[in-house]
Amino acid sequence: MARRGLLLILSSPSGAGKSTLAQRLMAWDPTLRFSISATTRPPRSAEQDGREYFFRSREAFEAMVSTGDMLEHAEVFGNLYGSPRGPVEAAMKDGRDTLFDIDWQGGQQIRNSALGRDVVSVFVLPPSIAELESRLRGRAQDSEEVIAGRMAKSQSEISHWAEYDYVIVNRDLDQAFAELTTILQAERLKRDRQPDLADFVRGLNSEFGAR
Amino acid sequence: MARRGLLLILSSPSGAGKSTLAQRLMAWDPTLRFSISATTRPPRSAEQDGREYFFRSREAFEAMVSTGDMLEHAEVFGNLYGSPRGPVEAAMKDGRDTLFDIDWQGGQQIRNSALGRDVVSVFVLPPSIAELESRLRGRAQDSEEVIAGRMAKSQSEISHWAEYDYVIVNRDLDQAFAELTTILQAERLKRDRQPDLADFVRGLNSEFGAR
Repeated sequence: MARRGLLLILSSPSGAGKSTLAQRLMAWDPTLRFSISATTRPPRSAEQDGREYFFRSREAFEAMVSTGDMLEHAEVFGNLYGSPRGPVEAAMKDGRDTLFDIDWQGGQQIRNSALGRDVVSVFVLPPSIAELESRLRGRAQDSEEVIAGRMAKSQSEISHWAEYDYVIVNRDLDQAFAELTTILQAERLKRDRQPDLADFVRGLNSEFGAR
Repeated sequence: MARRGLLLILSSPSGAGKSTLAQRLMAWDPTLRFSISATTRPPRSAEQDGREYFFRSREAFEAMVSTGDMLEHAEVFGNLYGSPRGPVEAAMKDGRDTLFDIDWQGGQQIRNSALGRDVVSVFVLPPSIAELESRLRGRAQDSEEVIAGRMAKSQSEISHWAEYDYVIVNRDLDQAFAELTTILQAERLKRDRQPDLADFVRGLNSEFGAR
């Protein structure tokens, strides 16, 4: 009996280090599957369909929603984002864990879905808002208006921290990454995530019987 | 606001390595408090009152039970064993975690008590019954009758493995110990075990307000 894969949901305001943590986690554990989101926003220059996102028309996206093929979806800054259901369920059946880099709306929807008991959710907080803003400004030449919009979204994202199972304050990236791997490893040791144990204990009992 | 200490319950059949794991965990984390059990069994040669156990008369033990001063207690091989409540509650208030090396009966009672939500329970399984028996025989010159009694108790203990949050198969002591520390560290990252976070997030929100 294969184990059932878990759904590791990582959320944070943008600039708190979530995507870097997600990339390091994927490199650290090759069995982990990253859930590539679908979106209706147009691709940026270096982005490839099926790598950063599945780029879809609004019609195609809404068709997936109406057939139940989106595990969660939400509209952010006028664009739709969602997590396609098929690859997630395939990974779970194979006993592989799936990593989601999604916001509180997506997290809430998956937690409240039929897959809720398979969810492990982690919220990453920045050490300070000054640090968050400096990271946001440092990484791109965005207009003040865009920065202001991101900061407002960050505040709203942070307001949902208390809905998550675990919270990591990203003061130091190595420390935050160690905490994230610790969480994933511990969750894999949970009894109900080790279905093979039932057979193993039956084996121990046969050994008692044969003494 | 100090964090609230958790109750780490470690159970296993005797010979599966639980006590060695408990000792290593105490050495690894000096903030952890070990819950010394009270018992009505007489002390063995090298044992000291208040170190291995609190040695009590049956009358004194039963008086503690009747005044609610035992968090859990059970009778094993004609002797009473129990966990005094006072030191545990004091540690919790100080934000210190308490380690319990107790059997399934004690684990069940604490899990079902008012402190149940503070419990993290870990069951340690032996790699095989042959290995368990060889460890039991290796460590003492006990009679066949005593060995048979311990093996029967082991079988009954193992039958409760599925009541625990986490399960570790002790194939290799270093690996099992690494898994145990991983579980403790991850549990400390749970949101509801970090009450200081609420203040921290209030601070972030003030920073947003002051921008």
